Amino acid sequence: MAAWSERLAGVRGVLLDISGVLLDGGKDGGVPIPGSVEALARLKRSQLKVRFCTNESQVSRKDLVGLLRHMGFDISEGEVTSPAPAACLVLKERGLRPHLLVSDGVRSEFHRIDTSKPNCVVIADAGESFSYQNVNKAFQVLMELENPVLISLGKGRYYKQTSGLMLDVGAYMKALEYACGIEAQVVGKPAPEFFQSALREMGLEAHEAQ
Amino acid sequence: MAAWSERLAGVRGVLLDISGVLLDGGKDGGVPIPGSVEALARLKRSQLKVRFCTNESQVSRKDLVGLLRHMGFDISEGEVTSPAPAACLVLKERGLRPHLLVSDGVRSEFHRIDTSKPNCVVIADAGESFSYQNVNKAFQVLMELENPVLISLGKGRYYKQTSGLMLDVGAYMKALEYACGIEAQVVGKPAPEFFQSALREMGLEAHEAQ
Repeated sequence: MAAWSERLAGVRGVLLDISGVLLDGGKDGGVPIPGSVEALARLKRSQLKVRFCTNESQVSRKDLVGLLRHMGFDISEGEVTSPAPAACLVLKERGLRPHLLVSDGVRSEFHRIDTSKPNCVVIADAGESFSYQNVNKAFQVLMELENPVLISLGKGRYYKQTSGLMLDVGAYMKALEYACGIEAQVVGKPAPEFFQSALREMGLEAHEAQ
Repeated sequence: MAAWSERLAGVRGVLLDISGVLLDGGKDGGVPIPGSVEALARLKRSQLKVRFCTNESQVSRKDLVGLLRHMGFDISEGEVTSPAPAACLVLKERGLRPHLLVSDGVRSEFHRIDTSKPNCVVIADAGESFSYQNVNKAFQVLMELENPVLISLGKGRYYKQTSGLMLDVGAYMKALEYACGIEAQVVGKPAPEFFQSALREMGLEAHEAQ
């Protein structure tokens, strides 16, 4: 216990990932990692601030939190930093109207965003929605823009499901980058701005969080 | 004519692309470029050797030549260097058994290749066959190999169809490269070996061809 106290000296909050920390098995729902429900409950009872920082971009924050609560986790929507709401802030700040290459499960996050006459493309982990037709449509939108802007919600290579490894958004980001000769802007981990926004929402500085 | 004679001094043969040289409009069949049928006929009547060098990998050489002949071009299957037959030679030489991520139209090129227990992946321009499921299956095959080998038939970014720009094999090659952390081996243009095999089939050295 002494060792932990030393390591936690000055720490006022913790940022937790969800997949691999609370859940195992990935995007087909997944199962709680043994002990994680109770561990989170203990963290919540401590003096530490707790926030969740995930790259989940296939389902909305609301659905993700609903699933976690159903599994017994003490978590609310406002405690989660995820790429889709962060992307909405970027879109609004920069006057961008996205063509969305995303799964139906996360589309609701963008319901207040103007998607008419797109001047950028937002790509998320879209799973089966990464059909040739859908990916090609996003490509065509980018190629028609004078200044093509591609915003990618994370840049993961793949993730693990019970059925096996699954290609993540990063692979399709790379496909579009290559075809268009551009570089995507990543919203989500590992972008420093993403961690910073999570810290800001906790009211902490980087050295105060673990 | 004098200028042409000078430029062609020492030249004994010509390598012609098909898309953009004989045909316009790409893979939905396309239309002959005005004057190209007659220009090819004149070339064939000249002293020059003629060979076709294409990165077409969505249809078999047989079907491609059938289409061109139907349009009036003087062309036969044996005159065409294309990536699928070149890849078959590579596979045989190296004892590779491919998992094929290709369109149904080109699958017949591989009918003499052993595809059981794959120890590599061959990717071609697959159009609509680039579904998430198919691309992910190729990814899973690669990830299960101790030494993942990815052979790509060309690495084009996109091509033009009458309906618009279409993503080519290179985009999906990049997706798999990134997801697996590997580098593909390209069979087809711009690989020097591909041009060399076309020259070898003409019996010419590089400086003798245009």
